[in-house]
Amino acid sequence: MATTGKRLAESTRVEAFSDGVFAVAITLLVLELHAPEGKGGFLAQLLAQWQTYVAYLAAFLVIGVVWMTHHSLFNRIARVDARLIIQNLLQLLLASLVPFAAGVVSDSLRVGERADQVVAVALFALVSVALSLSWNWLTWYVERTPELLVDAADVAPLRRGRRGQLVALVPSVVALGIAFISPFLALAILAVLPLFYLGSVLRTERGID
Amino acid sequence: MATTGKRLAESTRVEAFSDGVFAVAITLLVLELHAPEGKGGFLAQLLAQWQTYVAYLAAFLVIGVVWMTHHSLFNRIARVDARLIIQNLLQLLLASLVPFAAGVVSDSLRVGERADQVVAVALFALVSVALSLSWNWLTWYVERTPELLVDAADVAPLRRGRRGQLVALVPSVVALGIAFISPFLALAILAVLPLFYLGSVLRTERGID
Amino acid sequence: MATTGKRLAESTRVEAFSDGVFAVAITLLVLELHAPEGKGGFLAQLLAQWQTYVAYLAAFLVIGVVWMTHHSLFNRIARVDARLIIQNLLQLLLASLVPFAAGVVSDSLRVGERADQVVAVALFALVSVALSLSWNWLTWYVERTPELLVDAADVAPLRRGRRGQLVALVPSVVALGIAFISPFLALAILAVLPLFYLGSVLRTERGID
Amino acid sequence: MATTGKRLAESTRVEAFSDGVFAVAITLLVLELHAPEGKGGFLAQLLAQWQTYVAYLAAFLVIGVVWMTHHSLFNRIARVDARLIIQNLLQLLLASLVPFAAGVVSDSLRVGERADQVVAVALFALVSVALSLSWNWLTWYVERTPELLVDAADVAPLRRGRRGQLVALVPSVVALGIAFISPFLALAILAVLPLFYLGSVLRTERGID
Repeated sequence: MATTGKRLAESTRVEAFSDGVFAVAITLLVLELHAPEGKGGFLAQLLAQWQTYVAYLAAFLVIGVVWMTHHSLFNRIARVDARLIIQNLLQLLLASLVPFAAGVVSDSLRVGERADQVVAVALFALVSVALSLSWNWLTWYVERTPELLVDAADVAPLRRGRRGQLVALVPSVVALGIAFISPFLALAILAVLPLFYLGSVLRTERGID
Repeated sequence: MATTGKRLAESTRVEAFSDGVFAVAITLLVLELHAPEGKGGFLAQLLAQWQTYVAYLAAFLVIGVVWMTHHSLFNRIARVDARLIIQNLLQLLLASLVPFAAGVVSDSLRVGERADQVVAVALFALVSVALSLSWNWLTWYVERTPELLVDAADVAPLRRGRRGQLVALVPSVVALGIAFISPFLALAILAVLPLFYLGSVLRTERGID
Repeated sequence: MATTGKRLAESTRVEAFSDGVFAVAITLLVLELHAPEGKGGFLAQLLAQWQTYVAYLAAFLVIGVVWMTHHSLFNRIARVDARLIIQNLLQLLLASLVPFAAGVVSDSLRVGERADQVVAVALFALVSVALSLSWNWLTWYVERTPELLVDAADVAPLRRGRRGQLVALVPSVVALGIAFISPFLALAILAVLPLFYLGSVLRTERGID
Repeated sequence: MATTGKRLAESTRVEAFSDGVFAVAITLLVLELHAPEGKGGFLAQLLAQWQTYVAYLAAFLVIGVVWMTHHSLFNRIARVDARLIIQNLLQLLLASLVPFAAGVVSDSLRVGERADQVVAVALFALVSVALSLSWNWLTWYVERTPELLVDAADVAPLRRGRRGQLVALVPSVVALGIAFISPFLALAILAVLPLFYLGSVLRTERGID
């Protein structure tokens, strides 16, 4: 990074590194699923942690959707500059916090203290909202820096997608509020949101929307 | 994903991300092998967990074969759409559950309670069957969407392979049933099946089948 | 590696392997963030480990900057020889020690014994300094072996960058000294340094420096 | 894999998957380094596990050299068939066992019971020897299947390299024997061997050998 003047580099390695972080983060989630302990009652123990499976699914879907969105954005990006790399690092930092937040949620569900569940689900919702905002900021920078794009005409669809995603933030923020009333309902919303998003992507592709 | 109309993207990053998840999942398995504890008797402790090694090998082979099949399918795929990405995420979700299922099996073998072993091996068999079904669904979608393929003529071999794999599901489902009678026999079948599959791939290549 | 005479290979796989190690190391950091335990007081427990978050952020930034620097260097490299691969392995060895050093720091902050914190932060500073020195050595080798570069004219900017980074070592070494007086101040310096570095990269790109 | 007749595929994804497994395995090693526990005495505790650092370094070097050798072989390979993929899976299975073997060694050193150390170091030596033999088998298959190579003329250097590596097996087997007399000496040999190998690669490149 010792050059003067703006230096652009191929985006391939940024994608490879990001894919690595997403892949590790999404697979580390499985460490939150605990094998039963002690003698006897494996089935009961496995069924008793059903709420943990919801947290696992929510976390998997959050990272999965973040990866999909990342993949979709970088499909249009040809070159990266230092600013983009730094904003991408922020995105990766937040994504790598998802297993931690999911672990806190999973523990709070196992312990069963309502006040703890409020804290845990609010933390999970916060990380989700921060991921959306960080992605919004990243996309906004790309829109203003069209020389990074494969095709400068991609600015318009990127902007449309980014604004649509701002609207999609509303239920996440609502879930953050609901966490204080019913943590499990808030978690269910956070788990369903990515599915809803995936469905909307599919409908868009079929030209229904 | 803000475009209207069907959007296709290069399959490279989907492969890179999937390879990452498979690589992490297959390597995380080693965390299920526990180093002996306490003073003395390392050899006895290492030998005593021989059933855990069978579970480790079975899980390694299951993920290895899933990766091989994935690799073989994506070799023929040139482009991906959102639907394929979502079905692939399901495949990755199930693959990342294998270390958990293997951990439950390994713990049940260590604890030595038969009822627990039934539950554990049945869970492992369920994940294996779900992986097969999910792959079948993915391939079926690709067959009906030949514009994703490098060469549309690949539809026929894909269909043949998918139907052959449906037949190969029979012993997995049988193992799921046997788990309730003899968990260890069921586990042995699940560990041997991938070897059998690998052997059949080799024979096919040599033109014997 | 059985050839005689100097053998050069494409740098792609070295980058892929290095990206993998950096991605795993940066994501493993999250295992140092412990979900609260016991019943009640999740919020208090989460807030109480705020120093751990500083350690997490410092470690994340250290690995992130090392990756950025690696990415920036390998952008200019077209071919690798065995010597470069070995020096790169040293870089990866040190990078993979960062989660360990961060874990020691995090534990010492939780335990709260000042003497332990001195040891822990000094260890973290040592790993950071070693990473810088190892990178310097790697770059120095590349400067003297211009046939590895895409463009031999890159030797001059590489040398400028390497010398600038030697100057940047001063605050790291100072932090190592300060660790014996105030471990937390030293840790804060080590966390701020990468941000400072990132800012300087951005300023350089904008042509301000 | 539903085709009839021998089917060849690009080697890129096999390399990507293998790089992933090697990267995860080499980075998981750090989980064997335990942060000190309890209050006070961090420095003493860190220094007391110095033998663990030797085990860590030995394991890091073993996987590093296996990766280098893999990289060097696949540099010459253009296409893969099912047989090569299966033999490569065996190589990855053995590589992913290295963190387990290193963990057993590290625990045996901490516990300090000589009989346990014999078992642990012998296990580590066995995995090293198995890795060498598996790589030898893989290379032997490639030699007999020159259509997999970029250049059929590479058969001769591959054979020379493979035979040289068979000679290099002697000290590994000797270390396996020495483990029963002095486990720590055997471990030191196993840690030094990869350095020796790296040095020989460097000398070869300089045309000294």
